[in-house]
Amino acid sequence: MSEQLTFPEPDARKLTPYLPPPNPAGTQTRAQGSRPFVTLTFATSLDSSLSLAPGVRTRLSGPESKAMTHYLRSRHDAICVGVGTAVADDPALNCRIAGCEGQQPRPIVLDPHGRWAVSAESKVLETARAARGKAPFVITAEEATLSAGYADAVEDAGGKIIRLGTDGEGRFAWRDVLGALWTEGIRSVMVEGGGGVINELLDPANHELIDSVIVTIAPTWLGKGGVVVSPERVHEGGNAIPAARLSDVLWHPLGEDVVLCGRL
Amino acid sequence: MSEQLTFPEPDARKLTPYLPPPNPAGTQTRAQGSRPFVTLTFATSLDSSLSLAPGVRTRLSGPESKAMTHYLRSRHDAICVGVGTAVADDPALNCRIAGCEGQQPRPIVLDPHGRWAVSAESKVLETARAARGKAPFVITAEEATLSAGYADAVEDAGGKIIRLGTDGEGRFAWRDVLGALWTEGIRSVMVEGGGGVINELLDPANHELIDSVIVTIAPTWLGKGGVVVSPERVHEGGNAIPAARLSDVLWHPLGEDVVLCGRL
Repeated sequence: MSEQLTFPEPDARKLTPYLPPPNPAGTQTRAQGSRPFVTLTFATSLDSSLSLAPGVRTRLSGPESKAMTHYLRSRHDAICVGVGTAVADDPALNCRIAGCEGQQPRPIVLDPHGRWAVSAESKVLETARAARGKAPFVITAEEATLSAGYADAVEDAGGKIIRLGTDGEGRFAWRDVLGALWTEGIRSVMVEGGGGVINELLDPANHELIDSVIVTIAPTWLGKGGVVVSPERVHEGGNAIPAARLSDVLWHPLGEDVVLCGRL
Repeated sequence: MSEQLTFPEPDARKLTPYLPPPNPAGTQTRAQGSRPFVTLTFATSLDSSLSLAPGVRTRLSGPESKAMTHYLRSRHDAICVGVGTAVADDPALNCRIAGCEGQQPRPIVLDPHGRWAVSAESKVLETARAARGKAPFVITAEEATLSAGYADAVEDAGGKIIRLGTDGEGRFAWRDVLGALWTEGIRSVMVEGGGGVINELLDPANHELIDSVIVTIAPTWLGKGGVVVSPERVHEGGNAIPAARLSDVLWHPLGEDVVLCGRL
């Protein structure tokens, strides 16, 4: 048995305005809907690092924040991570909050170049076979060559390979990614990382695709050289301007950490 | 007349445990005292930037946080900034909170190489002559050559040039700086920036000199290329470890911002 987490109801209530509508009827608010409700969520240090170095899993936030992450997962149809996170963390990408059984979120792995060394032993596939989570959908480039056994491992566990066009540099347009998820029946997705994915979504070009941002900040400085959340610089009239600002802000202390909710 | 700020009493009460003892008797707690009570305080973006670029003054935090800064100034004998901040911002370095009249904090400018183009027109000297603040004490290297008029400008306004030994690279030891302030009768100092000063003090070698840390975080990402607060990397047994962690943490939402108080 893996541990089961609980997230206190008063904390959950605070987050409600930043979460997708809880029932399917609610999704009709996005009437001609072509993309899911998108929540961008991650945890950083005070110096905006996700981890001490690429590929190094760094425990930043406390147990309360971990429970919150799993609560948030329970409130979305899917969880999305970049391939760097899948490779570095070998994450289960399931939900371990009480009451989540039977309605697990769909893991989505963005792997344009087929970099993920996925196998039957990958934790997300083990978790799916044990019926403690769903099998992943992998989004990869139309032209990508997947290693032997990649597609089989994913599909044997009940997952799917989705091919998508890329730009000249092998990158997906986020609009296309979200469109593909919508086509798969996914009405809400929680984007969890890593750094590349987060910085892309914080770029002003993508702000209109993001419905909600939930950031956990731990009272730690990791120091220079970490994997940093900081979007590309934005200029206006030759001068640098802030790249992104949140509105409708809520700061919610949670254990030693603070949770910041807002809209871009 | 310059504007007068007010900081609500309930907010002030929250900060009290992180501030120097309010009366002179309290300083006896540092019995054979050789250094003042040190509060490190600054405001950053979510991506830990103080400003968009070196020398660019960037409004980050809201009016409530500004009032807090001036309240904090009223609770310290001195305010300390590095020369970069003095050059970039031409700051008044006084206190404009109601009730601060007659007990202004002493501005301290750390200028080891005599880089500050201080003149009678510098705002801090104008403020001192108008009796709305104190004249600065400048700490400079024993071997530094100050430009013509530098010392006169400072001393004519009632300030002082303090000479201090440096290491091979022309840097002060923080212990020496704080010792010099103690000798001047300063029992509490609020260190406000800029980036170089803050990152030095967040280095583990200096943690024991810091009594309290108060950081304001604004819900904005400035984007890559800003002046970043992030201490030098720390290693232990060949692996990077977090450079600094706060304990006794308080997160206090203030307007759109959050104030983080803690101890290193």
